[in-house]
Amino acid sequence: MAKIDLRASAQQSNDAVAARNRDLFGRNGVYVMNFIGSPGCGKTSILEYTARHLDGNFAAIIGDVQTAFDAERIRDCGVEAHAIETGGGCHLNAAQIASTVANIALDRLDFLFIENVGNLVCPSAFDLGENIKVAVLSVPEGDEKVRKYPALFVRADVVFINKMDLLDRCPYDAERVKEDALKVRPHVRIFETSATGGTGFEPWFEFLRSVR
Amino acid sequence: MAKIDLRASAQQSNDAVAARNRDLFGRNGVYVMNFIGSPGCGKTSILEYTARHLDGNFAAIIGDVQTAFDAERIRDCGVEAHAIETGGGCHLNAAQIASTVANIALDRLDFLFIENVGNLVCPSAFDLGENIKVAVLSVPEGDEKVRKYPALFVRADVVFINKMDLLDRCPYDAERVKEDALKVRPHVRIFETSATGGTGFEPWFEFLRSVR
Repeated sequence: MAKIDLRASAQQSNDAVAARNRDLFGRNGVYVMNFIGSPGCGKTSILEYTARHLDGNFAAIIGDVQTAFDAERIRDCGVEAHAIETGGGCHLNAAQIASTVANIALDRLDFLFIENVGNLVCPSAFDLGENIKVAVLSVPEGDEKVRKYPALFVRADVVFINKMDLLDRCPYDAERVKEDALKVRPHVRIFETSATGGTGFEPWFEFLRSVR
Repeated sequence: MAKIDLRASAQQSNDAVAARNRDLFGRNGVYVMNFIGSPGCGKTSILEYTARHLDGNFAAIIGDVQTAFDAERIRDCGVEAHAIETGGGCHLNAAQIASTVANIALDRLDFLFIENVGNLVCPSAFDLGENIKVAVLSVPEGDEKVRKYPALFVRADVVFINKMDLLDRCPYDAERVKEDALKVRPHVRIFETSATGGTGFEPWFEFLRSVR
């Protein structure tokens, strides 16, 4: 009996759609970022702050298991935002992105933010066709997350350490986190921010201006 | 061609092993808790505080994608702790628990803590044979998590709202969270704690004494 590896097959099918997405994004000159992090690490707040303070044309696709709260928050910044409710699904896949971007005028955009489902494990394995993966950590989560969830950090091009304003109240060694991240991904860019306080964003904005 | 629902089949197989685990736990008179929450919400800290301050015989099984840091923390409290490294897996399953408890003298225990992989989505669907599911939330994550991740909260028998010591620094409506949790699970027990500050644990200890 032939043994079929269903997981590998699903992955190949996802990768094929992701490649088509990537081609579409490239032809339209839009830079696409896939934000991945735990529930409540500040993904939406980072998008909000960026959309409010950086010049450019943005749109956002926001994945959530249920509810469209985060998409509404992004719309409140005057940014086009599309919610994908996965109905229990623990990550976004390339086909969901393909059908959503069919409703977005990509040629008018500079940047497309994709906010993945709040989950530090499953989303890292699924290419959506993005230019970069952005891992979002936050200070209250503790400083061992790079070591505990390596699958994301070997693939992340950018790492945020968010909620830096809580450093005085949470035991957290940011230097250790940076060392851990650089060890598994030597060219990763690391930004230390407080999205609610609006600090630390200038290097991130410079990065975005450089890739635009 | 017959269509096979592989997900349903895997679920049934897990449920069968979970039922055998539950039977084994019952025969040995050990009360088993499956702790589920985001990375860094305080699951391990709650177990540490409980093991240090409540009388009883404990053991713990600690799931992580990679590393055994949390199991080591529990051992430092003088509690037998077994690490399950899932190697990328996003949740524990009943078979992993069955093979781990084969190495634990269950008849000497009052309580077995299972700390699931840090993930608010996937672990909620997998019965391990536990007596209760314990959902752990924390204040810095934000107060909309019950609405955003309903699959866990319709099944949780206990909800912790942890890191209450950060209420003064994080916008968080604990009353809203409690209302949301009671709406989807009317008999849920809710404990508001600070595991690092050691506050709010007495009602939880009373609960554990009552089920022992």
